[in-house]
Amino acid sequence: MSGGNNSTYVPGLEGIIGAQTAISLVDGANGRLVYQGYVIADLAEAMSFEEVAFLLWEGRLPNRAELDALSSELASSRELTQAATIALDALPAETDPMDVLRSVVSIQGVEHRLAKPTRPLAIHATGSFPTILATFYRRQLGLPPVKPRSDLGHAANYLYMLNGKESSPEQVRALNTYLVLLADHGMNASTFTARVIASTESDLTSCLVGAIGALKGPAHGGAPSAVMDQLEKIETADRAETWLRDARKRKERFMGFGHRVYRVYDPRAKILKEMCRQMNPKFYDLASKVEEVALQILHEEHPERPQSTNVEFYSAGVLQAIGLPKEFFTPTFAVARVAGWSAHVLEQAAHNRIIRPQSEYIGPEPRKPVPLAERG
Amino acid sequence: MSGGNNSTYVPGLEGIIGAQTAISLVDGANGRLVYQGYVIADLAEAMSFEEVAFLLWEGRLPNRAELDALSSELASSRELTQAATIALDALPAETDPMDVLRSVVSIQGVEHRLAKPTRPLAIHATGSFPTILATFYRRQLGLPPVKPRSDLGHAANYLYMLNGKESSPEQVRALNTYLVLLADHGMNASTFTARVIASTESDLTSCLVGAIGALKGPAHGGAPSAVMDQLEKIETADRAETWLRDARKRKERFMGFGHRVYRVYDPRAKILKEMCRQMNPKFYDLASKVEEVALQILHEEHPERPQSTNVEFYSAGVLQAIGLPKEFFTPTFAVARVAGWSAHVLEQAAHNRIIRPQSEYIGPEPRKPVPLAERG
Repeated sequence: MSGGNNSTYVPGLEGIIGAQTAISLVDGANGRLVYQGYVIADLAEAMSFEEVAFLLWEGRLPNRAELDALSSELASSRELTQAATIALDALPAETDPMDVLRSVVSIQGVEHRLAKPTRPLAIHATGSFPTILATFYRRQLGLPPVKPRSDLGHAANYLYMLNGKESSPEQVRALNTYLVLLADHGMNASTFTARVIASTESDLTSCLVGAIGALKGPAHGGAPSAVMDQLEKIETADRAETWLRDARKRKERFMGFGHRVYRVYDPRAKILKEMCRQMNPKFYDLASKVEEVALQILHEEHPERPQSTNVEFYSAGVLQAIGLPKEFFTPTFAVARVAGWSAHVLEQAAHNRIIRPQSEYIGPEPRKPVPLAERG
Repeated sequence: MSGGNNSTYVPGLEGIIGAQTAISLVDGANGRLVYQGYVIADLAEAMSFEEVAFLLWEGRLPNRAELDALSSELASSRELTQAATIALDALPAETDPMDVLRSVVSIQGVEHRLAKPTRPLAIHATGSFPTILATFYRRQLGLPPVKPRSDLGHAANYLYMLNGKESSPEQVRALNTYLVLLADHGMNASTFTARVIASTESDLTSCLVGAIGALKGPAHGGAPSAVMDQLEKIETADRAETWLRDARKRKERFMGFGHRVYRVYDPRAKILKEMCRQMNPKFYDLASKVEEVALQILHEEHPERPQSTNVEFYSAGVLQAIGLPKEFFTPTFAVARVAGWSAHVLEQAAHNRIIRPQSEYIGPEPRKPVPLAERG
């Protein structure tokens, strides 16, 4: 009994097309990530996050006037509403920062009545993510919040609000590159979540809140802090081989490896690896040795499988170099990805059909219920 | 360029199997809804919501001791956390109740670290939904909140917290039947959202918050108040024919009609229609005439299409008879569906594979970006 369909169940919808999109292409065979017709290597270090957000939302790069207008709109979206501020302050200081983000984004976006997703709403949400996280980060440290600065770009202002002082140009550039690299990635689970919610004609905030919840999962965005945990256990490069082979005997997973799409080296990991080499040599020495050994072991176990270092492996080193504690790695992933999520929501809303797959019933055949008094 | 797959895009994933489930079967050909092997007509008026929630979660009906234990656990989950109470009070009184539910469920469920979905967590969430809504409902009326009563069942306590007094047995029974009928329904968009989020190994609260966002959409659960809006415009049964034919000329949709799955009359609508006839004769007289004319017009336009009165059409009349304002129709749908959502999350977590479809890239071929200074 399958509820009236003739298709075959494919676990995880692997290989099934969930949406058509112009926003990004994950070209796994060639190791390319493309945003609206530009390969990521051409954008990562040359463009600001603001330019790339415009590209994702509008399908083209902005001119100077458009970029200035967007930067100014983003800067004016950095204040939290009164309700969001009160809710944030009421959350226990030990709350998972992803739960803080999910809750405060929800409150920041409450409406009196249903609003259609628009680009101004996308800007408004994107502008608020760093404020929510920085405010909570400082609260955990017992420090007062830092007011956003409208003269700083998106990456620079996030670091400024976290630390209460301007970061070095190198750190700002690194965070900007990270945000650009992580801003979109085809039909991952959180983006798909956002599109399913959008397909019911719901509002943008509902889509983003759902996407944050999906990104939180360790099988999606919740793993970069696990990379750091594993590296901390390995401690030094000379222990990598022994530790990893022992871990494998204990059936432990190697954190930061494995991806469903790339057949060659993830283009984002390549750029982040080089950034780690320059900015975080201690991390790099350990991580690159761990990577070498892990890939060797994975190849011995499954010679037919391709290279598989994923974006989270070297993300950890870059975010550490910027000064972020590991609990804020996944939330900072969300600071980048909100641009892609909202672009996908706008695209879904523009060409909508409700996303409602079938299910295949595998329960018992219908029978009569036994009355309560007669149940053993 | 499709990112490495060979399948064909099916908009809305129509007919694609998104999950296998033992929780419910929507047997559209025979007009049957089945929960874990029991047809809805055998459950709707004979069982409490608590019994049906147990059934959805456990795959079997409870005995007396199990039912008492569940009722007691649900009753002890009716208090909101301090953070949830503060956040709820901070929200503007005009906030959409679905946004209130999305936000306060998120805060009620914050954790210090990632927790796996469990049945106790499902009970805890299910118990909290009525409190959130009743507290906000009374706040909108300028009334103080009413403390939950642990001696009342789920439906009776919800009505008690809304109104500050016990409702009639007839009203309690009607709400209970509504909650049972709406508790699950195969792979609808909100349940699918919950399963996609669960598939990333995220927590139950993230799944429920995403599902609430999807249910909010007018193409999913956000329509019953629209049914009431349309009936209010039609005013009287004798105006139905003229009004509906004029509406069709203006290309207006008939609210409460259309469903992707049922080929015969929706079994839930059948039960709700009879309840309307008994409890809400004024609504019934108007609605049944509107239904008759609407189905006639729809049949004239598309004789090949099946009967299509959906669950939302007569839900409106039942919820009105219980005394709920129309802004609380969709949130009360969520009070029912949280049982099904959490059952699906538990099932997904028990047999997990990340739900990550492909996308088909329809953007431009990669080209080199023009530097900012040279953009027109």
